[in-house]
Amino acid sequence: MIQVLTSKDNKHIKFAASLKEKKYRETSKMFLAETKKTLEMAILSNAVYEVFTTEYLDIPDDIPQFLVDEKLLAKLSSNVNPDGVVFIAKMQSKEVNGPHKILYLDEITDPGNMGTLIRTALAFSYDLVVASEKSVSFYNEKVVNSSKGAIFAIPVKIGKLSDYKGTHQIIVSNLSKKSTPLDEIEYKENFVLVLGNESRGISQEVRKLADLEVIIPISNIDSLNVSVAGGILMNKIH
Amino acid sequence: MIQVLTSKDNKHIKFAASLKEKKYRETSKMFLAETKKTLEMAILSNAVYEVFTTEYLDIPDDIPQFLVDEKLLAKLSSNVNPDGVVFIAKMQSKEVNGPHKILYLDEITDPGNMGTLIRTALAFSYDLVVASEKSVSFYNEKVVNSSKGAIFAIPVKIGKLSDYKGTHQIIVSNLSKKSTPLDEIEYKENFVLVLGNESRGISQEVRKLADLEVIIPISNIDSLNVSVAGGILMNKIH
Repeated sequence: MIQVLTSKDNKHIKFAASLKEKKYRETSKMFLAETKKTLEMAILSNAVYEVFTTEYLDIPDDIPQFLVDEKLLAKLSSNVNPDGVVFIAKMQSKEVNGPHKILYLDEITDPGNMGTLIRTALAFSYDLVVASEKSVSFYNEKVVNSSKGAIFAIPVKIGKLSDYKGTHQIIVSNLSKKSTPLDEIEYKENFVLVLGNESRGISQEVRKLADLEVIIPISNIDSLNVSVAGGILMNKIH
Repeated sequence: MIQVLTSKDNKHIKFAASLKEKKYRETSKMFLAETKKTLEMAILSNAVYEVFTTEYLDIPDDIPQFLVDEKLLAKLSSNVNPDGVVFIAKMQSKEVNGPHKILYLDEITDPGNMGTLIRTALAFSYDLVVASEKSVSFYNEKVVNSSKGAIFAIPVKIGKLSDYKGTHQIIVSNLSKKSTPLDEIEYKENFVLVLGNESRGISQEVRKLADLEVIIPISNIDSLNVSVAGGILMNKIH
């Protein structure tokens, strides 16, 4: 279905724009995403609801496609360099049977970090990303953008770390001198890798659940950016 | 020297605010930085010119300290969560004798990536960070903020990759199937690790200079974020 839209008051545009607010994302279970590349990944996951584009796209016929001008598209885009495509995606709740490799994000608050960590987890074939309730929303536009489409390809959910205690080895990244250097750790088939808040690091509550604490040996500065640390850890532990 | 400032028209405030623009940074060779932690690192490098703070700081007497209210400070801050300290820093041109470990950034355009890569290079004890002319400025406020003070502790400069050909092994991160997987590479004592543009990757010009092309083996997605890739590479190559 292809249709030209010219008014910002059109109901499709208004609905799409409403998804910039968390409350409307939560009630509708839909969210905004953009770029052609991300759209390709969303189509593969059957996650596309409606597409807004400045030029006709060769995508499956059953996906509604609305042709709009750049000004109208800009109302929906949060991208600095938009490439002419914004779309509404459906949140997915894939059940993951016995996930082996889990990334757990404990109060990650920066959307760029959250998106980058989801992208990296997909790249290292993790089965699932779980975030604590206080983390930034998976469906925040900046999270979606910086995940580069990974949000459509790896299951994500909100959950408690304690749910994995016993079934999975809980490996916590912690900048303590008592932690094991990354090159010396031994990890099991079923594990949860835990990363903590950008400023505060790992909470006491999370530390109590740790089966293993790991540290990346560095010099001259207190810590690495959490996305960088996550990348180094996932490159080794996967 | 401690002084209370209340007017936004004061010459110190006006000069500091002017440093938000690149042209004024370049003529004065000064730039803005913020947070207490970054100030500590800048003091260690004798790089502090003037400090603006909402409360008295216990810093060396010879550093001018201006007490301002939050509103005035906000005029200078680019931080989402300011902690009450903004300062003017002097650009430094440390000569590095025979640098062994160099990170070369070829057209890195995102300030967050640039700052994070500088921070990571310091953490893995690199001697020098060199950026191509088309890269984002080292002294952009977002670069300075995301370097977390590393900009004061590791020498940085604009330069050409070709200057290192012959004296250093040029190791280029390239997503080509012909590249050597990271775990299999051998690197020399003197090397330059090269990272390319966020979207376009490595240019043909840079590829011609490569002594070794390296790839991080990943699945499911085309690429990693450049800061994450840089972290994984520097963790191995340093």
